[in-house]
Amino acid sequence: MRITAGQLEEFLAEHFPQGARYGTLERLGDGWADMKLEVGDEHLRPGGTVSGPALMGLADVALYAALLTRIGLVPLAVTTNLNINFLRKPVANCPVIASARMLRVGKAMGVGEVYLRSEGNDAPVAHATISYAIPAER
Amino acid sequence: MRITAGQLEEFLAEHFPQGARYGTLERLGDGWADMKLEVGDEHLRPGGTVSGPALMGLADVALYAALLTRIGLVPLAVTTNLNINFLRKPVANCPVIASARMLRVGKAMGVGEVYLRSEGNDAPVAHATISYAIPAER
Amino acid sequence: MRITAGQLEEFLAEHFPQGARYGTLERLGDGWADMKLEVGDEHLRPGGTVSGPALMGLADVALYAALLTRIGLVPLAVTTNLNINFLRKPVANCPVIASARMLRVGKAMGVGEVYLRSEGNDAPVAHATISYAIPAER
Amino acid sequence: MRITAGQLEEFLAEHFPQGARYGTLERLGDGWADMKLEVGDEHLRPGGTVSGPALMGLADVALYAALLTRIGLVPLAVTTNLNINFLRKPVANCPVIASARMLRVGKAMGVGEVYLRSEGNDAPVAHATISYAIPAER
Repeated sequence: MRITAGQLEEFLAEHFPQGARYGTLERLGDGWADMKLEVGDEHLRPGGTVSGPALMGLADVALYAALLTRIGLVPLAVTTNLNINFLRKPVANCPVIASARMLRVGKAMGVGEVYLRSEGNDAPVAHATISYAIPAER
Repeated sequence: MRITAGQLEEFLAEHFPQGARYGTLERLGDGWADMKLEVGDEHLRPGGTVSGPALMGLADVALYAALLTRIGLVPLAVTTNLNINFLRKPVANCPVIASARMLRVGKAMGVGEVYLRSEGNDAPVAHATISYAIPAER
Repeated sequence: MRITAGQLEEFLAEHFPQGARYGTLERLGDGWADMKLEVGDEHLRPGGTVSGPALMGLADVALYAALLTRIGLVPLAVTTNLNINFLRKPVANCPVIASARMLRVGKAMGVGEVYLRSEGNDAPVAHATISYAIPAER
Repeated sequence: MRITAGQLEEFLAEHFPQGARYGTLERLGDGWADMKLEVGDEHLRPGGTVSGPALMGLADVALYAALLTRIGLVPLAVTTNLNINFLRKPVANCPVIASARMLRVGKAMGVGEVYLRSEGNDAPVAHATISYAIPAER
Protein backbone atom coordinates (compact mmCIF):
# COMPACT_ATOMS: atom_id res chain seq x y z
CA MET A 1 0.00 0.00 0.00
CA ARG A 2 1.34 3.36 -0.95
CA ILE A 3 -0.61 5.53 1.46
CA THR A 4 -1.75 5.54 5.07
CA ALA A 5 -5.27 5.98 6.37
CA GLY A 6 -4.25 9.35 7.81
CA GLN A 7 -2.94 10.62 4.47
CA LEU A 8 -6.03 9.43 2.67
CA GLU A 9 -8.39 11.02 5.19
CA GLU A 10 -6.56 14.31 4.92
CA PHE A 11 -6.71 14.13 1.14
CA LEU A 12 -10.43 13.36 1.10
CA ALA A 13 -11.16 16.13 3.60
CA GLU A 14 -9.34 18.61 1.39
CA HIS A 15 -10.84 17.54 -1.91
CA PHE A 16 -14.33 16.65 -0.67
CA PRO A 17 -15.20 19.39 1.81
CA GLN A 18 -18.66 17.85 2.16
CA GLY A 19 -17.10 14.41 2.22
CA ALA A 20 -17.93 13.83 5.88
CA ARG A 21 -21.53 13.71 4.76
CA TYR A 22 -20.62 10.60 2.80
CA GLY A 23 -18.73 8.67 5.43
CA THR A 24 -15.47 8.32 7.33
CA LEU A 25 -12.61 5.95 6.64
CA GLU A 26 -12.51 2.83 8.80
CA ARG A 27 -9.82 0.64 7.28
CA LEU A 28 -7.92 0.44 4.04
CA GLY A 29 -5.50 -1.82 2.19
CA ASP A 30 -4.14 -2.43 -1.28
CA GLY A 31 -7.09 -1.81 -3.57
CA TRP A 32 -9.78 -1.75 -0.90
CA ALA A 33 -11.31 0.50 1.75
CA ASP A 34 -14.07 0.34 4.34
CA MET A 35 -16.05 3.46 5.17
CA LYS A 36 -18.75 4.16 7.72
CA LEU A 37 -21.71 6.51 7.48
CA GLU A 38 -23.03 7.70 10.83
CA VAL A 39 -26.59 8.35 9.83
CA GLY A 40 -27.78 11.89 10.53
CA ASP A 41 -30.99 13.73 9.80
CA GLU A 42 -29.70 14.89 6.43
CA HIS A 43 -29.46 11.27 5.21
CA LEU A 44 -32.92 10.17 6.20
CA ARG A 45 -36.08 9.48 4.31
CA PRO A 46 -39.43 9.28 6.08
CA GLY A 47 -39.48 6.16 8.24
CA GLY A 48 -35.92 6.62 9.48
CA THR A 49 -34.32 4.86 6.54
CA VAL A 50 -31.20 6.13 4.80
CA SER A 51 -31.84 7.93 1.50
CA GLY A 52 -30.69 6.56 -1.83
CA PRO A 53 -28.41 9.53 -2.57
CA ALA A 54 -26.71 9.13 0.82
CA LEU A 55 -26.02 5.46 0.02
CA MET A 56 -24.79 6.30 -3.48
CA GLY A 57 -22.50 9.03 -2.14
CA LEU A 58 -21.09 6.65 0.45
CA ALA A 59 -20.45 3.93 -2.17
CA ASP A 60 -18.77 6.41 -4.49
CA VAL A 61 -16.40 7.91 -1.93
CA ALA A 62 -15.52 4.47 -0.49
CA LEU A 63 -14.51 3.06 -3.87
CA TYR A 64 -12.74 6.30 -4.71
CA ALA A 65 -10.65 5.75 -1.57
CA ALA A 66 -9.96 2.17 -2.68
CA LEU A 67 -8.81 3.47 -6.07
CA LEU A 68 -6.48 6.02 -4.46
CA THR A 69 -4.68 3.22 -2.59
CA ARG A 70 -3.59 2.08 -6.04
CA ILE A 71 -3.03 5.24 -8.06
CA GLY A 72 -1.85 7.53 -5.22
CA LEU A 73 -3.24 10.80 -3.98
CA VAL A 74 -4.14 12.45 -7.27
CA PRO A 75 -7.35 14.46 -7.38
CA LEU A 76 -8.10 13.85 -11.04
CA ALA A 77 -9.99 10.60 -11.25
CA VAL A 78 -13.67 11.09 -12.09
CA THR A 79 -16.64 8.76 -11.80
CA THR A 80 -17.89 7.74 -15.24
CA ASN A 81 -20.47 5.05 -14.46
CA LEU A 82 -22.29 3.98 -11.32
CA ASN A 83 -24.70 1.08 -11.11
CA ILE A 84 -26.44 0.33 -7.84
CA ASN A 85 -28.97 -2.28 -6.78
CA PHE A 86 -30.96 -1.46 -3.66
CA LEU A 87 -31.56 -4.79 -1.95
CA ARG A 88 -33.05 -4.25 1.52
CA LYS A 89 -34.18 -1.45 3.77
CA PRO A 90 -31.26 -0.28 5.94
CA VAL A 91 -31.79 -0.75 9.68
CA ALA A 92 -33.19 2.49 11.10
CA ASN A 93 -30.80 4.68 13.11
CA CYS A 94 -27.89 2.34 12.43
CA PRO A 95 -24.58 3.27 10.73
CA VAL A 96 -23.99 1.95 7.22
CA ILE A 97 -20.68 0.26 6.40
CA ALA A 98 -19.29 0.34 2.86
CA SER A 99 -16.83 -2.41 1.86
CA ALA A 100 -15.20 -1.30 -1.38
CA ARG A 101 -12.61 -3.02 -3.54
CA MET A 102 -11.23 -2.55 -6.99
CA LEU A 103 -11.83 -5.26 -9.59
CA ARG A 104 -9.38 -3.74 -12.03
CA VAL A 105 -7.13 -0.70 -12.15
CA GLY A 106 -5.72 -0.03 -15.60
CA LYS A 107 -3.87 2.95 -16.98
CA ALA A 108 -6.93 4.89 -18.11
CA MET A 109 -9.69 3.30 -16.06
CA GLY A 110 -10.56 1.71 -12.72
CA VAL A 111 -13.58 -0.48 -11.93
CA GLY A 112 -14.67 -1.81 -8.56
CA GLU A 113 -17.57 -2.92 -6.42
CA VAL A 114 -19.03 -1.92 -3.06
CA TYR A 115 -21.23 -3.74 -0.57
CA LEU A 116 -23.27 -1.56 1.76
CA ARG A 117 -24.47 -3.10 5.02
CA SER A 118 -26.17 -1.89 8.18
CA GLU A 119 -23.51 -2.23 10.88
CA GLY A 120 -23.61 -5.68 12.46
CA ASN A 121 -25.65 -7.21 9.62
CA ASP A 122 -24.36 -9.61 6.98
CA ALA A 123 -27.06 -9.12 4.37
CA PRO A 124 -26.17 -6.18 2.11
CA VAL A 125 -28.63 -3.27 1.83
CA ALA A 126 -27.16 -2.34 -1.54
CA HIS A 127 -24.45 -3.34 -4.01
CA ALA A 128 -22.76 -0.97 -6.43
CA THR A 129 -20.26 -1.23 -9.28
CA ILE A 130 -18.50 1.99 -10.23
CA SER A 131 -16.04 3.01 -12.97
CA TYR A 132 -13.54 5.85 -12.87
CA ALA A 133 -11.59 7.52 -15.65
CA ILE A 134 -7.97 8.10 -14.71
CA PRO A 135 -6.51 11.02 -16.67
CA ALA A 136 -3.22 10.45 -18.47
CA GLU A 137 -1.62 13.65 -17.15
CA ARG A 138 -0.89 12.48 -13.64
CA MET B 1 -52.62 12.85 -16.49
CA ARG B 2 -54.10 12.04 -13.16
CA ILE B 3 -52.40 14.68 -11.05
CA THR B 4 -51.43 18.33 -11.18
CA ALA B 5 -48.01 19.84 -10.63
CA GLY B 6 -49.27 21.40 -7.40
CA GLN B 7 -50.49 18.08 -6.01
CA LEU B 8 -47.25 16.38 -6.95
CA GLU B 9 -45.11 19.11 -5.38
CA GLU B 10 -47.10 18.93 -2.18
CA PHE B 11 -46.75 15.16 -2.12
CA LEU B 12 -43.01 15.26 -2.71
CA ALA B 13 -42.54 17.96 -0.05
CA GLU B 14 -44.38 15.80 2.46
CA HIS B 15 -42.65 12.53 1.66
CA PHE B 16 -39.19 13.91 0.88
CA PRO B 17 -38.60 16.57 3.53
CA GLN B 18 -35.11 17.04 2.12
CA GLY B 19 -36.49 16.83 -1.38
CA ALA B 20 -35.84 20.48 -2.14
CA ARG B 21 -32.18 19.57 -2.00
CA TYR B 22 -32.79 17.37 -5.05
CA GLY B 23 -34.72 19.79 -7.21
CA THR B 24 -38.04 21.49 -7.85
CA LEU B 25 -40.73 20.52 -10.31
CA GLU B 26 -40.78 22.50 -13.55
CA ARG B 27 -43.27 20.71 -15.79
CA LEU B 28 -44.98 17.36 -15.91
CA GLY B 29 -47.18 15.26 -18.17
CA ASP B 30 -48.32 11.70 -18.65
CA GLY B 31 -45.28 9.61 -17.77
CA TRP B 32 -42.75 12.43 -17.71
CA ALA B 33 -41.49 15.27 -15.54
CA ASP B 34 -38.84 18.00 -15.70
CA MET B 35 -37.10 19.10 -12.54
CA LYS B 36 -34.57 21.84 -11.85
CA LEU B 37 -31.75 21.88 -9.34
CA GLU B 38 -30.66 25.35 -8.29
CA VAL B 39 -27.09 24.59 -7.40
CA GLY B 40 -26.13 25.54 -3.85
CA ASP B 41 -22.98 25.11 -1.82
CA GLU B 42 -24.15 21.75 -0.53
CA HIS B 43 -24.14 20.32 -4.07
CA LEU B 44 -20.67 21.42 -5.04
CA ARG B 45 -17.39 19.67 -5.46
CA PRO B 46 -14.13 21.59 -5.58
CA GLY B 47 -14.01 23.55 -8.82
CA GLY B 48 -17.64 24.65 -8.62
CA THR B 49 -19.01 21.54 -10.29
CA VAL B 50 -22.10 19.71 -9.08
CA SER B 51 -21.39 16.56 -7.05
CA GLY B 52 -22.30 13.10 -8.29
CA PRO B 53 -24.69 12.40 -5.40
CA ALA B 54 -26.55 15.66 -6.09
CA LEU B 55 -27.00 14.63 -9.74
CA MET B 56 -28.09 11.11 -8.76
CA GLY B 57 -30.58 12.48 -6.22
CA LEU B 58 -32.00 14.85 -8.83
CA ALA B 59 -32.34 12.06 -11.41
CA ASP B 60 -34.05 9.79 -8.90
CA VAL B 61 -36.62 12.29 -7.67
CA ALA B 62 -37.39 13.49 -11.22
CA LEU B 63 -38.12 9.99 -12.49
CA TYR B 64 -40.03 9.23 -9.30
CA ALA B 65 -42.24 12.21 -10.14
CA ALA B 66 -42.68 10.88 -13.68
CA LEU B 67 -43.72 7.51 -12.26
CA LEU B 68 -46.27 9.12 -9.92
CA THR B 69 -48.01 10.73 -12.90
CA ARG B 70 -48.86 7.17 -13.90
CA ILE B 71 -49.49 5.31 -10.65
CA GLY B 72 -50.91 8.18 -8.61
CA LEU B 73 -49.78 9.70 -5.33
CA VAL B 74 -48.81 6.55 -3.46
CA PRO B 75 -45.71 6.71 -1.29
CA LEU B 76 -44.76 3.08 -1.65
CA ALA B 77 -42.67 2.79 -4.79
CA VAL B 78 -38.99 2.19 -4.06
CA THR B 79 -35.92 2.52 -6.25
CA THR B 80 -34.43 -0.90 -7.00
CA ASN B 81 -31.75 -0.13 -9.60
CA LEU B 82 -30.05 3.03 -10.76
CA ASN B 83 -27.48 3.21 -13.54
CA ILE B 84 -25.89 6.54 -14.39
CA ASN B 85 -23.27 7.59 -16.91
CA PHE B 86 -21.50 10.85 -16.18
CA LEU B 87 -20.81 12.40 -19.57
CA ARG B 88 -19.53 15.96 -19.16
CA LYS B 89 -18.68 18.43 -16.44
CA PRO B 90 -21.75 20.49 -15.54
CA VAL B 91 -21.39 24.22 -16.20
CA ALA B 92 -20.25 25.88 -12.96
CA ASN B 93 -22.86 27.87 -11.03
CA CYS B 94 -25.61 26.92 -13.46
CA PRO B 95 -28.87 25.10 -12.61
CA VAL B 96 -29.18 21.50 -13.74
CA ILE B 97 -32.36 20.41 -15.56
CA ALA B 98 -33.57 16.81 -15.35
CA SER B 99 -35.82 15.52 -18.15
CA ALA B 100 -37.34 12.26 -16.94
CA ARG B 101 -39.70 9.88 -18.67
CA MET B 102 -40.95 6.39 -18.07
CA LEU B 103 -40.06 3.69 -20.61
CA ARG B 104 -42.46 1.20 -19.06
CA VAL B 105 -44.86 1.12 -16.14
CA GLY B 106 -46.11 -2.37 -15.33
CA LYS B 107 -48.03 -3.68 -12.39
CA ALA B 108 -45.03 -4.52 -10.23
CA MET B 109 -42.31 -2.42 -11.79
CA GLY B 110 -41.54 0.85 -13.53
CA VAL B 111 -38.45 1.71 -15.62
CA GLY B 112 -37.47 5.04 -17.08
CA GLU B 113 -34.63 7.29 -18.15
CA VAL B 114 -33.40 10.76 -17.27
CA TYR B 115 -31.23 13.26 -19.13
CA LEU B 116 -29.44 15.82 -16.97
CA ARG B 117 -28.33 19.05 -18.65
CA SER B 118 -26.86 22.35 -17.52
CA GLU B 119 -29.63 24.89 -18.16
CA GLY B 120 -29.42 26.27 -21.67
CA ASN B 121 -27.16 23.48 -22.94
CA ASP B 122 -28.18 20.63 -25.26
CA ALA B 123 -25.37 18.20 -24.47
CA PRO B 124 -26.31 16.07 -21.45
CA VAL B 125 -23.99 16.08 -18.42
CA ALA B 126 -25.34 12.69 -17.36
CA HIS B 127 -27.87 10.03 -18.36
CA ALA B 128 -29.55 7.66 -15.94
CA THR B 129 -31.88 4.68 -16.18
CA ILE B 130 -33.77 3.80 -13.00
CA SER B 131 -36.12 0.98 -11.95
CA TYR B 132 -38.78 1.12 -9.25
CA ALA B 133 -40.67 -1.67 -7.52
CA ILE B 134 -44.38 -0.90 -7.18
CA PRO B 135 -45.90 -2.77 -4.23
CA ALA B 136 -49.04 -4.78 -4.88
CA GLU B 137 -50.89 -3.40 -1.87
CA ARG B 138 -51.68 0.00 -3.27
CA MET C 1 -20.21 11.64 -41.49
CA ARG C 2 -16.88 10.17 -42.36
CA ILE C 3 -17.97 6.79 -43.67
CA THR C 4 -20.66 5.23 -45.86
CA ALA C 5 -23.02 2.42 -44.97
CA GLY C 6 -21.20 0.19 -47.47
CA GLN C 7 -17.81 0.83 -45.91
CA LEU C 8 -19.16 0.23 -42.43
CA GLU C 9 -20.89 -3.01 -43.43
CA GLU C 10 -17.71 -4.29 -45.04
CA PHE C 11 -15.72 -3.37 -41.93
CA LEU C 12 -18.17 -5.08 -39.58
CA ALA C 13 -18.28 -8.20 -41.77
CA GLU C 14 -14.50 -8.41 -41.65
CA HIS C 15 -14.08 -7.77 -37.95
CA PHE C 16 -17.21 -9.56 -36.73
CA PRO C 17 -17.39 -12.74 -38.83
CA GLN C 18 -20.40 -13.81 -36.76
CA GLY C 19 -21.72 -10.25 -36.90
CA ALA C 20 -24.62 -11.15 -39.16
CA ARG C 21 -25.98 -13.07 -36.20
CA TYR C 22 -26.32 -9.74 -34.42
CA GLY C 23 -28.00 -7.72 -37.13
CA THR C 24 -27.56 -5.85 -40.41
CA LEU C 25 -27.13 -2.14 -40.96
CA GLU C 26 -30.24 -0.25 -42.00
CA ARG C 27 -29.28 3.42 -41.84
CA LEU C 28 -26.52 5.50 -40.34
CA GLY C 29 -25.56 9.12 -39.75
CA ASP C 30 -23.23 11.22 -37.67
CA GLY C 31 -23.12 9.47 -34.31
CA TRP C 32 -26.05 7.13 -34.88
CA ALA C 33 -26.98 3.89 -36.60
CA ASP C 34 -30.06 1.69 -37.01
CA MET C 35 -29.65 -2.07 -37.26
CA LYS C 36 -32.13 -4.86 -37.86
CA LEU C 37 -32.12 -8.40 -36.53
CA GLU C 38 -34.01 -10.88 -38.69
CA VAL C 39 -34.94 -13.36 -36.01
CA GLY C 40 -33.77 -16.91 -36.70
CA ASP C 41 -33.95 -20.12 -34.72
CA GLU C 42 -30.60 -19.42 -33.08
CA HIS C 43 -32.02 -16.27 -31.42
CA LEU C 44 -35.11 -17.84 -29.96
CA ARG C 45 -36.14 -18.83 -26.50
CA PRO C 46 -39.07 -21.16 -25.90
CA GLY C 47 -42.28 -19.35 -26.85
CA GLY C 48 -40.82 -17.79 -29.97
CA THR C 49 -39.36 -14.78 -28.18
CA VAL C 50 -35.91 -13.39 -28.89
CA SER C 51 -33.25 -14.38 -26.35
CA GLY C 52 -31.56 -11.86 -24.07
CA PRO C 53 -28.07 -12.50 -25.49
CA ALA C 54 -29.35 -11.93 -29.04
CA LEU C 55 -30.80 -8.56 -27.95
CA MET C 56 -27.61 -7.62 -26.10
CA GLY C 57 -25.46 -8.57 -29.10
CA LEU C 58 -27.67 -6.49 -31.38
CA ALA C 59 -27.52 -3.46 -29.06
CA ASP C 60 -23.73 -3.73 -28.78
CA VAL C 61 -23.01 -3.99 -32.49
CA ALA C 62 -25.48 -1.20 -33.35
CA LEU C 63 -23.90 1.27 -30.93
CA TYR C 64 -20.45 0.13 -32.05
CA ALA C 65 -21.48 1.11 -35.59
CA ALA C 66 -22.70 4.48 -34.28
CA LEU C 67 -19.34 5.01 -32.58
CA LEU C 68 -17.43 4.17 -35.77
CA THR C 69 -19.26 6.95 -37.63
CA ARG C 70 -17.41 9.29 -35.28
CA ILE C 71 -13.99 7.72 -34.76
CA GLY C 72 -13.57 6.08 -38.17
CA LEU C 73 -12.99 2.48 -39.12
CA VAL C 74 -10.57 1.46 -36.39
CA PRO C 75 -10.98 -2.02 -34.93
CA LEU C 76 -9.65 -1.17 -31.49
CA ALA C 77 -12.58 0.13 -29.47
CA VAL C 78 -13.76 -2.34 -26.82
CA THR C 79 -16.95 -2.48 -24.81
CA THR C 80 -16.28 -1.70 -21.14
CA ASN C 81 -19.79 -1.45 -19.66
CA LEU C 82 -23.22 -2.50 -20.83
CA ASN C 83 -26.44 -1.88 -18.93
CA ILE C 84 -29.71 -3.16 -20.34
CA ASN C 85 -33.29 -3.02 -19.12
CA PHE C 86 -35.64 -5.59 -20.62
CA LEU C 87 -39.01 -3.86 -20.85
CA ARG C 88 -41.45 -5.99 -22.84
CA LYS C 89 -41.60 -9.31 -24.62
CA PRO C 90 -40.56 -8.89 -28.27
CA VAL C 91 -43.28 -9.73 -30.78
CA ALA C 92 -42.82 -13.35 -31.86
CA ASN C 93 -41.35 -13.96 -35.31
CA CYS C 94 -40.84 -10.25 -35.90
CA PRO C 95 -37.53 -8.51 -36.68
CA VAL C 96 -36.02 -6.35 -33.97
CA ILE C 97 -34.83 -2.83 -34.83
CA ALA C 98 -32.01 -1.20 -32.86
CA SER C 99 -31.81 2.61 -32.84
CA ALA C 100 -28.39 3.54 -31.49
CA ARG C 101 -26.85 6.93 -30.87
CA MET C 102 -23.82 8.24 -29.07
CA LEU C 103 -24.35 10.50 -26.06
CA ARG C 104 -20.68 11.44 -25.89
CA VAL C 105 -17.53 10.58 -27.80
CA GLY C 106 -14.37 11.74 -26.04
CA LYS C 107 -10.75 10.98 -26.70
CA ALA C 108 -10.55 7.89 -24.52
CA MET C 109 -14.17 6.89 -24.18
CA GLY C 110 -17.53 6.78 -25.92
CA VAL C 111 -20.97 6.37 -24.32
CA GLY C 112 -24.30 5.91 -26.03
CA GLU C 113 -27.78 4.45 -25.79
CA VAL C 114 -29.87 2.02 -27.83
CA TYR C 115 -33.61 1.45 -28.10
CA LEU C 116 -34.68 -1.99 -29.26
CA ARG C 117 -38.15 -2.34 -30.77
CA SER C 118 -40.11 -5.04 -32.57
CA GLU C 119 -40.46 -3.75 -36.13
CA GLY C 120 -43.55 -1.60 -36.53
CA ASN C 121 -43.98 -1.06 -32.77
CA ASP C 122 -43.27 2.15 -30.87
CA ALA C 123 -42.90 0.71 -27.38
CA PRO C 124 -39.30 -0.42 -26.80
CA VAL C 125 -38.66 -4.05 -25.84
CA ALA C 126 -35.35 -3.05 -24.26
CA HIS C 127 -33.11 -0.05 -23.64
CA ALA C 128 -29.34 -0.23 -23.25
CA THR C 129 -26.53 2.18 -22.39
CA ILE C 130 -23.05 1.09 -23.40
CA SER C 131 -19.53 2.47 -22.88
CA TYR C 132 -16.49 1.87 -25.06
CA ALA C 133 -12.81 2.46 -24.38
CA ILE C 134 -11.06 4.05 -27.35
CA PRO C 135 -7.34 3.23 -27.33
CA ALA C 136 -4.91 6.12 -27.67
CA GLU C 137 -2.80 4.39 -30.33
CA ARG C 138 -5.13 4.88 -33.24
CA MET D 1 -30.95 -26.70 -1.41
CA ARG D 2 -34.15 -27.83 -2.98
CA ILE D 3 -32.82 -29.26 -6.22
CA THR D 4 -29.96 -31.38 -7.51
CA ALA D 5 -27.50 -30.54 -10.27
CA GLY D 6 -29.08 -33.24 -12.41
CA GLN D 7 -32.57 -31.84 -12.04
CA LEU D 8 -31.37 -28.34 -12.78
CA GLU D 9 -29.44 -29.43 -15.88
CA GLU D 10 -32.45 -31.28 -17.20
CA PHE D 11 -34.64 -28.25 -16.57
CA LEU D 12 -32.24 -25.85 -18.31
CA ALA D 13 -31.85 -28.22 -21.28
CA GLU D 14 -35.62 -28.33 -21.68
CA HIS D 15 -36.27 -24.62 -21.29
CA PHE D 16 -33.13 -23.33 -23.02
CA PRO D 17 -32.66 -25.59 -26.05
CA GLN D 18 -29.68 -23.44 -27.08
CA GLY D 19 -28.53 -23.30 -23.48
CA ALA D 20 -25.48 -25.47 -24.09
CA ARG D 21 -24.16 -22.54 -26.09
CA TYR D 22 -24.12 -20.54 -22.86
CA GLY D 23 -22.41 -23.04 -20.59
CA THR D 24 -22.78 -26.21 -18.56
CA LEU D 25 -23.41 -26.57 -14.86
CA GLU D 26 -20.34 -27.34 -12.73
CA ARG D 27 -21.51 -27.03 -9.13
CA LEU D 28 -24.44 -25.54 -7.28
CA GLY D 29 -25.62 -24.82 -3.77
CA ASP D 30 -28.16 -22.74 -1.91
CA GLY D 31 -28.34 -19.50 -3.86
CA TRP D 32 -25.26 -20.04 -6.02
CA ALA D 33 -24.07 -21.90 -9.11
CA ASP D 34 -20.87 -22.26 -11.13
CA MET D 35 -21.07 -22.76 -14.87
CA LYS D 36 -18.41 -23.39 -17.49
CA LEU D 37 -18.30 -22.25 -21.10
CA GLU D 38 -16.17 -24.43 -23.35
CA VAL D 39 -15.26 -21.86 -25.92
CA GLY D 40 -16.19 -22.82 -29.49
CA ASP D 41 -15.95 -21.00 -32.79
CA GLU D 42 -19.39 -19.52 -32.37
CA HIS D 43 -18.24 -17.61 -29.25
CA LEU D 44 -15.13 -16.06 -30.75
CA ARG D 45 -14.22 -12.63 -31.90
CA PRO D 46 -11.20 -12.01 -34.12
CA GLY D 47 -8.06 -12.67 -32.07
CA GLY D 48 -9.45 -15.77 -30.42
CA THR D 49 -11.16 -13.89 -27.60
CA VAL D 50 -14.65 -14.72 -26.35
CA SER D 51 -17.38 -12.38 -27.61
CA GLY D 52 -19.30 -10.07 -25.31
CA PRO D 53 -22.68 -11.69 -26.05
CA ALA D 54 -21.26 -15.13 -25.19
CA LEU D 55 -20.05 -13.78 -21.84
CA MET D 56 -23.38 -12.06 -21.17
CA GLY D 57 -25.30 -15.21 -22.04
CA LEU D 58 -23.10 -17.25 -19.74
CA ALA D 59 -23.54 -14.79 -16.86
CA ASP D 60 -27.30 -14.71 -17.34
CA VAL D 61 -27.83 -18.47 -17.40
CA ALA D 62 -25.46 -19.03 -14.44
CA LEU D 63 -27.30 -16.57 -12.22
CA TYR D 64 -30.62 -17.92 -13.45
CA ALA D 65 -29.47 -21.34 -12.22
CA ALA D 66 -28.50 -19.79 -8.86
CA LEU D 67 -31.97 -18.24 -8.62
CA LEU D 68 -33.66 -21.57 -9.36
CA THR D 69 -31.88 -23.16 -6.38
CA ARG D 70 -33.98 -20.78 -4.29
CA ILE D 71 -37.34 -20.54 -6.05
CA GLY D 72 -37.48 -24.05 -7.50
CA LEU D 73 -37.81 -25.25 -11.07
CA VAL D 74 -40.31 -22.71 -12.37
CA PRO D 75 -39.77 -21.43 -15.89
CA LEU D 76 -41.33 -18.03 -15.32
CA ALA D 77 -38.60 -15.78 -13.99
CA VAL D 78 -37.43 -13.22 -16.55
CA THR D 79 -34.33 -11.05 -16.67
CA THR D 80 -35.23 -7.39 -16.13
CA ASN D 81 -31.83 -5.70 -15.80
CA LEU D 82 -28.29 -6.75 -16.61
CA ASN D 83 -25.21 -4.65 -15.94
CA ILE D 84 -21.81 -5.95 -16.95
CA ASN D 85 -18.30 -4.52 -16.71
CA PHE D 86 -15.75 -6.05 -19.06
CA LEU D 87 -12.47 -5.99 -17.15
CA ARG D 88 -9.82 -7.96 -19.03
CA LYS D 89 -9.39 -9.92 -22.25
CA PRO D 90 -10.28 -13.58 -21.64
CA VAL D 91 -7.38 -16.00 -22.19
CA ALA D 92 -7.60 -17.30 -25.77
CA ASN D 93 -8.87 -20.85 -26.26
CA CYS D 94 -9.54 -21.26 -22.55
CA PRO D 95 -12.89 -22.12 -20.93
CA VAL D 96 -14.65 -19.36 -19.01
CA ILE D 97 -15.98 -20.09 -15.51
CA ALA D 98 -18.98 -18.19 -14.15
CA SER D 99 -19.38 -17.97 -10.36
CA ALA D 100 -22.91 -16.75 -9.68
CA ARG D 101 -24.68 -16.03 -6.42
CA MET D 102 -27.85 -14.33 -5.37
CA LEU D 103 -27.60 -11.16 -3.27
CA ARG D 104 -31.31 -11.14 -2.52
CA VAL D 105 -34.31 -13.25 -3.42
CA GLY D 106 -37.60 -11.61 -2.53
CA LYS D 107 -41.13 -12.50 -3.44
CA ALA D 108 -41.29 -10.50 -6.66
CA MET D 109 -37.64 -10.04 -7.48
CA GLY D 110 -34.19 -11.61 -7.33
CA VAL D 111 -30.83 -9.84 -7.65
CA GLY D 112 -27.38 -11.40 -7.84
CA GLU D 113 -23.86 -11.06 -9.14
CA VAL D 114 -21.55 -13.10 -11.34
CA TYR D 115 -17.77 -13.20 -11.71
CA LEU D 116 -16.46 -14.51 -15.03
CA ARG D 117 -12.89 -15.85 -15.10
CA SER D 118 -10.70 -17.69 -17.59
CA GLU D 119 -10.25 -21.14 -16.08
CA GLY D 120 -7.26 -21.24 -13.76
CA ASN D 121 -7.07 -17.45 -13.42
CA ASP D 122 -8.05 -15.41 -10.36
CA ALA D 123 -8.50 -12.04 -12.00
CA PRO D 124 -12.06 -11.72 -13.36
CA VAL D 125 -12.56 -11.00 -17.07
CA ALA D 126 -15.99 -9.54 -16.34
CA HIS D 127 -18.41 -8.87 -13.49
CA ALA D 128 -22.18 -8.70 -13.89
CA THR D 129 -25.15 -7.86 -11.68
CA ILE D 130 -28.51 -9.12 -12.89
CA SER D 131 -32.13 -8.71 -11.72
CA TYR D 132 -35.01 -11.08 -12.33
CA ALA D 133 -38.75 -10.56 -11.97
CA ILE D 134 -40.43 -13.52 -10.29
CA PRO D 135 -44.09 -13.75 -11.30
CA ALA D 136 -46.67 -14.04 -8.53
CA GLU D 137 -48.52 -16.94 -10.17
CA ARG D 138 -46.07 -19.68 -9.34
